[in-house]
Amino acid sequence: MITLLTDFGTQDSYVGVMKGVILSSCPDTPIIDLSHEIPPQNVDAGSFTWLEACAYFPKTTLHVGVVDPGVGSRRKILALQNKVGLFLAPDNGLLTDVIKQWGCLNLHSVDNSELFLNPVSSTFHGRDIFSPVAAQIASGLPLNRLGPQLNLEDIELLPDVMTSASEESLGWVQGRIRRVDRFGNAISDLQLSPSDSISQIQISSLKLPSLRNLYSEVGPGEPLALIGSSGFLEISVSGGSAAERYQIEVGDPLRVKKGNRADSPDNATPEK
Amino acid sequence: MITLLTDFGTQDSYVGVMKGVILSSCPDTPIIDLSHEIPPQNVDAGSFTWLEACAYFPKTTLHVGVVDPGVGSRRKILALQNKVGLFLAPDNGLLTDVIKQWGCLNLHSVDNSELFLNPVSSTFHGRDIFSPVAAQIASGLPLNRLGPQLNLEDIELLPDVMTSASEESLGWVQGRIRRVDRFGNAISDLQLSPSDSISQIQISSLKLPSLRNLYSEVGPGEPLALIGSSGFLEISVSGGSAAERYQIEVGDPLRVKKGNRADSPDNATPEK
Amino acid sequence: MITLLTDFGTQDSYVGVMKGVILSSCPDTPIIDLSHEIPPQNVDAGSFTWLEACAYFPKTTLHVGVVDPGVGSRRKILALQNKVGLFLAPDNGLLTDVIKQWGCLNLHSVDNSELFLNPVSSTFHGRDIFSPVAAQIASGLPLNRLGPQLNLEDIELLPDVMTSASEESLGWVQGRIRRVDRFGNAISDLQLSPSDSISQIQISSLKLPSLRNLYSEVGPGEPLALIGSSGFLEISVSGGSAAERYQIEVGDPLRVKKGNRADSPDNATPEK
Repeated sequence: MITLLTDFGTQDSYVGVMKGVILSSCPDTPIIDLSHEIPPQNVDAGSFTWLEACAYFPKTTLHVGVVDPGVGSRRKILALQNKVGLFLAPDNGLLTDVIKQWGCLNLHSVDNSELFLNPVSSTFHGRDIFSPVAAQIASGLPLNRLGPQLNLEDIELLPDVMTSASEESLGWVQGRIRRVDRFGNAISDLQLSPSDSISQIQISSLKLPSLRNLYSEVGPGEPLALIGSSGFLEISVSGGSAAERYQIEVGDPLRVKKGNRADSPDNATPEK
Repeated sequence: MITLLTDFGTQDSYVGVMKGVILSSCPDTPIIDLSHEIPPQNVDAGSFTWLEACAYFPKTTLHVGVVDPGVGSRRKILALQNKVGLFLAPDNGLLTDVIKQWGCLNLHSVDNSELFLNPVSSTFHGRDIFSPVAAQIASGLPLNRLGPQLNLEDIELLPDVMTSASEESLGWVQGRIRRVDRFGNAISDLQLSPSDSISQIQISSLKLPSLRNLYSEVGPGEPLALIGSSGFLEISVSGGSAAERYQIEVGDPLRVKKGNRADSPDNATPEK
Repeated sequence: MITLLTDFGTQDSYVGVMKGVILSSCPDTPIIDLSHEIPPQNVDAGSFTWLEACAYFPKTTLHVGVVDPGVGSRRKILALQNKVGLFLAPDNGLLTDVIKQWGCLNLHSVDNSELFLNPVSSTFHGRDIFSPVAAQIASGLPLNRLGPQLNLEDIELLPDVMTSASEESLGWVQGRIRRVDRFGNAISDLQLSPSDSISQIQISSLKLPSLRNLYSEVGPGEPLALIGSSGFLEISVSGGSAAERYQIEVGDPLRVKKGNRADSPDNATPEK
């Protein structure tokens, strides 16, 4: 199985053409669209989309990502295998969240131009390199036939959000909003479990004392924080758009204070 | 074969993830996207979309619908079989038009949590319940293995549009606009056949004396009413947008007077 | 394999229903979406989309195009075979670029109503004619079973852009912008090869002295002309939108002066 993640949109025939090239070689492979509406050239958003999605596919799936502002330049193309699947991506940080979450068992540069379409255009490697190479991998070609092995220090990774030492000593953890969905929910990259004690959540002008479990725990129009369906802290407004109401955008910082809720004056009353 | 109908949009990876879960269990099942752009949480629009579409699929098709404002609450999930196919939907009225049009042969609540992903999130039942259950049904699991049998009086249905007795005595039938398509055509839920005699059609400020057969029967920019491709009365403007021109929105009422056209002073001149 | 190209959008269930009809007859045929966001009724844009895409599919592929302002009128429906594949399209010019580029080996009118759904609506031939006929062709039905053979002079073709004799004598070639992509690149129908000498490119208020090979050859925000991934001259702005910056729209004329660059005072300095 192959999944596709791009910033190509669906207006043009780019995605259809990639599928044509792939299916020319392996006509029986199911191809799933993960998203083609990653904001143009937004590697960060693409990286996070993989983090939310890939665990729900079979471990034999090849995930192909083409969010590639450097197309046509000398940036490398990478093939990676780890415990959640196989990945094909430009060397620009698109693999960052995937590697942080699920590690790296095997990493190769994709150099073997015999596998590419001929000629290779300078502006559409999705068609000319990613698609024919994906078809080969899906047909069983081992990664070491693509090009030389690489180490993690050889490749580009997106910078980490650092929680400062002084903040950390006070129990704060820092994260960022990584995606705003169709309903206006703002999804952060802070991965929490239901057993984590949280005494405060801050984003923009909004302060929330605790996590909720359900949208319906607050009244219509009221804000809430909950652990979203992929395990990430998410800011919502019941029946409304948190992004609109609190002017939250992708990239905005948020922070969370861990610790016993009973310690917090904001949350003196038990929840239920 | 499985079809998907949601309000998830295509920007996020939600739909791709549902397909990943389904294909993890039954990799050879074709999955067709019916629409993922149902207006957010608009159960009414979702119900009508099924009414227009399902008759064109094989009767063994499983239609999965996730337009689900009550996700995470205690609303039931329903599995239904009737003469047009199998259906999986939240118990919120999404099945209303399907049941009115094609009846109900077998109806079960989906309770058997052994079939679900574990854990089940509170915000993405499309992934955690609908997808794995759909895969099981597509693989042949009988509906009685999903949970207890239900009757129609046990489930939620959308309210009917009622034509008042006084209107009815004068030959009027009342309906609603259920969908505005990409071209600005306003599609109602009044199902007519070409042999029906219509002496007047009223919507908003617009009065039309009769049905037409083709857009080209009126001049460019002129309004017309015709029976659309799924048998429903539809208001159009030749070469333009009826919705824009007459400010028609989803939910707007329209009414139609049945009867011999020759009786109507609006239509004294024969059509052709 | 079947590809679909329409102006139906993805909001409504039209495309899903076409797939339902096709897969009812041939459930194992892969169906690829080329684009469903051709601007409504824009036959010209549809024709060009096929020109960019079809060479990347197997030659046994059936390309189905429904951009069909004349639906329900007496316009013919055409089935064509040439060296790049099979095509099914309304007789309104949609096949123009395909025929100019890849010729015509076999052309038939689609008349045999036994192959259609019954009844045929007047507004959705995509479902009632194109889909069941496509399923038959994909299942191996020869084109001569669809209806009488036609010659190219029997069908509609879009008018050519003519370069005037006086312009031609000065080395100019005239073309048009045929598509603006998601990134704001304006793609023309002038097919060039990297070895062509170009001494000037003019579009709107913009004059460019030569072709570039890569976006990165100019500074951020600077305009450039290059040969796009399908071999067509394309106007771009590095890291920006050429369409927005220079107010370029689909249909706008552009012209190119062929000849030795060294002859041009605009380009006295060698490129690299």
